[in-house]
Amino acid sequence: VVVVSNDLLGAVTLNLALDITYDVDALTVGASHRVRTVRQRAGGKGVNVARVAHELGYDVLALGFVGGMTGELIAADLFDAGLTALLTPVAGESRRSVAVVDTGAGDATVFNEPGPVVDADEWRAFCDRVPWGRLGVLACSGSLPPGLPADAYAELTARARHHGVPAVIDAGGAALVASAKAGALVRANAAELREALAAADGTAGRVDGDGRPEPAGERAQVDVAAGARRLIELGATGAVITDGAAGMVAVTAKGAWRALPVERVRGNPTGAGDACTAVVAAAVAGGNEDWPDVLRSAVAASAAAVLTPVAGDIEVEAYRRWRPRVVVQAV
Amino acid sequence: VVVVSNDLLGAVTLNLALDITYDVDALTVGASHRVRTVRQRAGGKGVNVARVAHELGYDVLALGFVGGMTGELIAADLFDAGLTALLTPVAGESRRSVAVVDTGAGDATVFNEPGPVVDADEWRAFCDRVPWGRLGVLACSGSLPPGLPADAYAELTARARHHGVPAVIDAGGAALVASAKAGALVRANAAELREALAAADGTAGRVDGDGRPEPAGERAQVDVAAGARRLIELGATGAVITDGAAGMVAVTAKGAWRALPVERVRGNPTGAGDACTAVVAAAVAGGNEDWPDVLRSAVAASAAAVLTPVAGDIEVEAYRRWRPRVVVQAV
Repeated sequence: VVVVSNDLLGAVTLNLALDITYDVDALTVGASHRVRTVRQRAGGKGVNVARVAHELGYDVLALGFVGGMTGELIAADLFDAGLTALLTPVAGESRRSVAVVDTGAGDATVFNEPGPVVDADEWRAFCDRVPWGRLGVLACSGSLPPGLPADAYAELTARARHHGVPAVIDAGGAALVASAKAGALVRANAAELREALAAADGTAGRVDGDGRPEPAGERAQVDVAAGARRLIELGATGAVITDGAAGMVAVTAKGAWRALPVERVRGNPTGAGDACTAVVAAAVAGGNEDWPDVLRSAVAASAAAVLTPVAGDIEVEAYRRWRPRVVVQAV
Repeated sequence: VVVVSNDLLGAVTLNLALDITYDVDALTVGASHRVRTVRQRAGGKGVNVARVAHELGYDVLALGFVGGMTGELIAADLFDAGLTALLTPVAGESRRSVAVVDTGAGDATVFNEPGPVVDADEWRAFCDRVPWGRLGVLACSGSLPPGLPADAYAELTARARHHGVPAVIDAGGAALVASAKAGALVRANAAELREALAAADGTAGRVDGDGRPEPAGERAQVDVAAGARRLIELGATGAVITDGAAGMVAVTAKGAWRALPVERVRGNPTGAGDACTAVVAAAVAGGNEDWPDVLRSAVAASAAAVLTPVAGDIEVEAYRRWRPRVVVQAV
């Protein structure tokens, strides 16, 4: 029996990359290094979302642009990871990202290639091939490649709504505000939220009455929920804001909730936000509007992502253990 | 009219690489960097030999191992460079070498992948497909990939002689001595020569009568020609030793010559030795035994290679201008 899912979690990575990791004994500027081990896999925030959702048992469709040999390696790796992918070819060569890990010092030095320019025809081809009838949600994450219109995420959100598909957009800056206005459920971290709203409202660098900057600590506690509410006013169907050690805030037209972190987790925080997006997108696809429940899963998944050394993985055991223990408060 | 050459210059690179160059504004360990420009091309010392010989108008056949997508990129780049290539597939993935150039400081930090292991069957396949009847010379340059026998160059030299094809081997260490014994014309720099002979004769770290190390400066002038003669005694048909600012020495059974550099040239010395090998191999293929003439070309080509920013290129104009001006002395 072949089960064809009609509520696929579409995970979009417009700026797909091939993530290459080199382990070296000691990184010395100006020297020649023997690379001890080479690892490489498909990367980008949307790929992390797809991997985590797949790991949690959801049916996933990865979408993005690929070009050249590096694009083929990205496609091959997605296939090897068991991820169904619908990739739009571009004339340029997909970008690579090389992370050099000094295994002695433990730090990583990263080199990000600029990536291919995506032209108007390629962008139209991407939009036209999204299989809306098969999607339960369209989740878009990360930066835009050069050449795409600045409102690409807003356009995808509008197209999704036209087809009755909810959109979850993880973006910062102008894309965050534009996606909210277009009616997406938006995902960002607290710093991105503040920056985007300040730029949108013309309040960047705003100071209080006597000319001093407002105290960041106090304000931070207040303005994450307030900022999320502002996104709802602008048109967002929801806003889920990660706030580091302060947890997460979810705001919809029906309410606002804050979830506290389970415990202090040490590890690699890259990809924790993407794990949150994966859980939120899966909930939206499944029509789960019990936001305290969604936030419990999102916090547990984010913490379980920190435990793994590579972005896009979570420790499923830890996720299951932590999920029931997350405390959620109405705010 | 199609002219089929029967005296191709076979240029062997057993350890082919894809050389990737990233320009960054400033390299900071532990930071994330935006790569400004990405350049990549087939690399390895034998590829430099093939490029220079091709640039000087010789018919070249590039030989080596390729595997995986990186191997395909190497093959594609050789094709784009106009180089005919006969490449032996290997199960592993060809290696990459990433050079990060800090465009402010001007220095390069290099990361060399280990490269594929070449097994016995792949090595036999390589040896069996060398088109001996088409070759005027077989020039082999650079390090051996993991898995190959240490005497791989000596074996290629013996096979070449069996087919009446002269072999030019640019190698250091035990491979240099073994190739000499097998009857190759050997190419090395002065440091490689001393090191290889010291290891072969068990004289590494030898000191003079009163227990002090011999003075390096005086000895250097003496022992390059003497060392080259030693290689002839071992069985080499010739020895061409590059000696930096002191020029080059060529020794055969019939004589010994030193060529002085034309002028002080500033630039990138990587690939200068390979330009020398290209000229020497071309002379051997053409049966040119006028060694003062060959050395003039070799010195001019090496200097013209220093002028270009990339190994494997030479400034042909400078080469032509300098060639008649090189001074050669019998030693």
